[in-house]
Formats: sequence, C-alpha cells, structure tokens
Amino acid sequence: MNNYRIVLASASPRRQELLKQIGLIFEVCPSKKEEQVTSAVPSEVVKELSFQKAEDIFQQKSKEMKSMPLLVIGSDTIVSCDGQILGKPADEADACRMLKLLQGRKHQVYTGVTVFWTKRGEECEHFTFYECTEVEFYPMSDQEIASYVASKEPMDKAGAYGIQGLCAAHIRGISGDYNNVVGLPVGRLYQELHRRNLCTVGI
Amino acid sequence: MNNYRIVLASASPRRQELLKQIGLIFEVCPSKKEEQVTSAVPSEVVKELSFQKAEDIFQQKSKEMKSMPLLVIGSDTIVSCDGQILGKPADEADACRMLKLLQGRKHQVYTGVTVFWTKRGEECEHFTFYECTEVEFYPMSDQEIASYVASKEPMDKAGAYGIQGLCAAHIRGISGDYNNVVGLPVGRLYQELHRRNLCTVGI
Repeated sequence: MNNYRIVLASASPRRQELLKQIGLIFEVCPSKKEEQVTSAVPSEVVKELSFQKAEDIFQQKSKEMKSMPLLVIGSDTIVSCDGQILGKPADEADACRMLKLLQGRKHQVYTGVTVFWTKRGEECEHFTFYECTEVEFYPMSDQEIASYVASKEPMDKAGAYGIQGLCAAHIRGISGDYNNVVGLPVGRLYQELHRRNLCTVGI
Repeated sequence: MNNYRIVLASASPRRQELLKQIGLIFEVCPSKKEEQVTSAVPSEVVKELSFQKAEDIFQQKSKEMKSMPLLVIGSDTIVSCDGQILGKPADEADACRMLKLLQGRKHQVYTGVTVFWTKRGEECEHFTFYECTEVEFYPMSDQEIASYVASKEPMDKAGAYGIQGLCAAHIRGISGDYNNVVGLPVGRLYQELHRRNLCTVGI
C-alpha cells in the first residue's frame, strides 16, 4: 500500500486504532520531548505540538535508518470551551469541573497533525494541518456526571470525556469529523497523504 | 442499572456494539416479519420499519414472559441522496453505483427507533423517534471506489459504506449524531429512556 516505513509519534491507543481502521501499517514511537507552546490560539497550539512531536521522532528515526523511506505522523488534540483550553483532567474533581462546563452546550475539539517524510534519507519535507469539530452535549445532572467520572473513562482524555465510549449517551451531535474528536482526523490525513502520492489507493 | 429485560429486535452487530458501548445489558432477537412501508418520506419509512420490528418482537416476548418487565428496541436505517433511498447494495456493481452517487457531496442518513415496554405484562407503552445526520464524502476516484468495494465492507450496509470502517478515509465530516450513521442513535435513545425512568444513571 505504500513504500514508507510509517511511524506514529503518539502513545494514544485511540490514534493507533484509527490508523489501523483505514488500513495503514505503522509502528509506534511516542515523543517524550517537553512540549513548548508559544500561542494561546487553539488551532495554533495543536499545530505547534504536533510539529514538535513529529520533528522529534523524525530526527531520531532518520538517524537510525539512513536512506530508507521514512514517514512520521505527529498529532495533538485539545478541547476548547468558551476560550478555556481543556487538557487531560488532573484528578476526579477536575474531571467533574470540566464536564459541568461542557454539559448542555457546544464546544470545539482541535486536532493538529504534522507529517515529516523523506524518500532516501536526504531531503526532508513536511506539512501541518488542523481540523476543528464542534461537539454538543445533552444536559447532564450532577448524578450523571458523578456516575460517568466514577467509570474512570474521563481520566486520560482531553476535556474529560470519550465520545467513543460511555459518553456517547450524553452527546447530542457533532459538526465536522468524528475521528478528529477521538484523536486523529484520518479522513483529512488520508487525503493529504494521497494527493502527495505518499499512500496509494490500497486503502 | 435497570429492571427491565431489554431485547434488541435487530441482528446488526453494529447496533449491538453501540448498546454495549453505553453500558446496556440486553439480549438479541431479530424480527423476521416482512417489512411493509406506506410512505416514501425517509423519516416516515424508518419510523414505520422500526415500529414493525419492535412490535413484532414485543408481541412474541410478552407472551413468553408474562408479568415480567420487558423493553424491546426496534431500529431501521436508510441512506437518502437527492431523493433516492439507498438500502443495502444488491451486488458489487450496485455498491459502485451508490458510491459514485455519494462521493464528493452531502447526503442524509435516517435512523428510526421504536421502544415498546411493559412493567407487569399488562399495560404496554411505546414511543418512536428518528434522527437525521448529514454526511459529506470527499471526492473518490473510480480506482478508490473499486478498491473500497473489493474490500467487501460495503456489501451489508445501507448506502454501501461503513463510516466506522475503511470508509473513514473518504468522509470529510458529518452534521448530527455519528452513531446514527453507524446504525443506532444511542445518545437520543439513552435520553428518551432516562426521562421516562426506563434506565437509571448507571450509564
């Protein structure tokens, strides 16, 4: 399907599942570089962070495997509500606070994606994009929030919810790419790779 | 989480997965009753068909298990594009025809849901609703369509695609409930059950 050794610079099991879903074969190598953000604008933040992750792993891997076609995918997701950026909750009380903010209204989920690639270990190219999806929650009672937080599902997720999990019961609808909310906009990613001949139509 | 014996009147593995996803415990008993449609309006068609499936299985099950709390869920999904209703493709050529119609534009997915329930096998109540989600495809080349049809994924699905499968690579975005496109709007279903005290906040 492609001639590149593909590396996903993320430990997220959800991103791995999404890449598998569209038929990509890849390996996983999470970036441990400290995140540095210069912007407070959500679309810029996720672009910067995805760039840093992809660049870090590309530099590591291209040293290891000289003159082999290599392609590295970096990605970062944040939730934005009313100008507040929500990352992963610090603890259960923080998860409750986030869900109280999100329930009964709309918010935005931003995912940035950066791809670095090289054909022969010499010239390196890259592109970066982001996708934004609007998500609307049904109203949630305090009891529903407490019950959902007790499930532990919110604890490792930006914005303290998993649209692909139990929280589906509380989502009225979205506008944009669903997989962008899960953590990786694989539709846009495939389109960007395909039009640069970085993956064929085997998908 | 609830006191009802819940029966899903559908053989769809995707609907079963969605009910499990929100934490419901249920059994499966697909309706084999011949479908009868009196309307050509998509929202009416899916309501009628979901009603017929739920009523059929409710009648069977309520005879078997007198005076036990019983709740039956029936559901039906269709794809509508430009006034054409698309069901499951008859063969690969039909799947190609549907995908050529859908690519590069928006269409609508309708799912109807009917719930019948009884507390003690005497009085029976029911409600019916539908959800509509708009789905937008990226343009697809003939080669991409042929490759996707060769994967066999389209063959058992209304509109000849699975948004939760390989086809994610070709979806630009949606407007509405994602799970409605997969086959069951579990968000709305949970809300409708919850406000009638048919399931508690254990979800």
